[in-house]
Amino acid sequence: MTTMEQRLEALETRMALQDLTSDYCHGFDKRDLDRFMAIWWEDAVWEIGPPFGNFEAHAGIRHAVLDILWPAWAMSTHYTTNLRVSPDGPDAASGVCDVYCIGNTSDGQAQTVAATYFDSFTRREGTWKIARRRVTMQHFSPLVGITLAAPQ
Amino acid sequence: MTTMEQRLEALETRMALQDLTSDYCHGFDKRDLDRFMAIWWEDAVWEIGPPFGNFEAHAGIRHAVLDILWPAWAMSTHYTTNLRVSPDGPDAASGVCDVYCIGNTSDGQAQTVAATYFDSFTRREGTWKIARRRVTMQHFSPLVGITLAAPQ
Amino acid sequence: MTTMEQRLEALETRMALQDLTSDYCHGFDKRDLDRFMAIWWEDAVWEIGPPFGNFEAHAGIRHAVLDILWPAWAMSTHYTTNLRVSPDGPDAASGVCDVYCIGNTSDGQAQTVAATYFDSFTRREGTWKIARRRVTMQHFSPLVGITLAAPQ
Repeated sequence: MTTMEQRLEALETRMALQDLTSDYCHGFDKRDLDRFMAIWWEDAVWEIGPPFGNFEAHAGIRHAVLDILWPAWAMSTHYTTNLRVSPDGPDAASGVCDVYCIGNTSDGQAQTVAATYFDSFTRREGTWKIARRRVTMQHFSPLVGITLAAPQ
Repeated sequence: MTTMEQRLEALETRMALQDLTSDYCHGFDKRDLDRFMAIWWEDAVWEIGPPFGNFEAHAGIRHAVLDILWPAWAMSTHYTTNLRVSPDGPDAASGVCDVYCIGNTSDGQAQTVAATYFDSFTRREGTWKIARRRVTMQHFSPLVGITLAAPQ
Repeated sequence: MTTMEQRLEALETRMALQDLTSDYCHGFDKRDLDRFMAIWWEDAVWEIGPPFGNFEAHAGIRHAVLDILWPAWAMSTHYTTNLRVSPDGPDAASGVCDVYCIGNTSDGQAQTVAATYFDSFTRREGTWKIARRRVTMQHFSPLVGITLAAPQ
């Protein structure tokens, strides 16, 4: 029998996991390193896959974002939707969500990206963070002939 | 007077309906037929409208996805947002959400689609599923000159 | 100590704020003025910024949408995601969400827009609405060579 307390906690957990997937986007796109790093456990693994590779622990993730990804993008916007969460015991959960991304790489070329994030979330001392994020890309392609710029 | 139990159930219902709209995308795009079919009641109606038509019951919906839509798309990604839900009694609800889709049709042409889904959800024996989904398309157009592909 | 009642209310508040961000899109894109206006307090401020400007109170917001924005767009679709909410006391909250938009301006040119909305929500007599929405645009650019149209 599930108590009201447990049902309430399940909803709060869901919101906490949704917030992690949102903070990934806000942190990455707005170049807010503290917000971006706060979603990952110290020993987290970020499996971006080709062409970027895999990155481990805060040191590896910080390296990926500071030295590889932010330099590769002049401007990016990520939109996460379709989050589905399933519990893996009281302090672990799996998630899958889809992300659309559009922006300019550092060469000025507009790009469109579609990907799926497969997440392992864990709760430690009451806080949920990402323990592992694996990325599958459906496309990552130049928007040939298109220039993306903010209005003046 | 609404009790805490009723308020909790209303939140859980909302999450269940959100999950149905997410599973539509995951099931369709990742070609997971079981996940896709599980969102529809056996007697559900899927009104896609032009150019595809309308499809009834699991047999019709399975036909649409297996024989028409998956063959028509080489790769698709759907992003559902803006879900608004309103109750139609204790075991029925209406929903409206927007979907952006980008992918390649089977001829290799990149496409962009914007649509709205108008859903009728019903709860039977404690489970929510879609009884009717009506689609309105704002655009369905080729991304001329653009090739969408995954990184190698 | 947070009671179950307070935790439930926090979840309901979050859903109410999410609904406001969704109704912005549904109201604007489907040209439902009542739905669009219902998200704003009478004294709300809408800081769209360049090239559109800032608009105050229902009169100003109605003017912006009826006289400037709807005439500027032949067809638009907005997709809001990544909503993050933080409380500013019992009856106020801040939100940040991202929006992707694609559509045709009134000259028939397809456009792509990426923006972030920074919202101040307030609750008055039990109802949450937007008191201030500030827009930051990452891009607003023509999709050169692309024609967006609904299927016939």
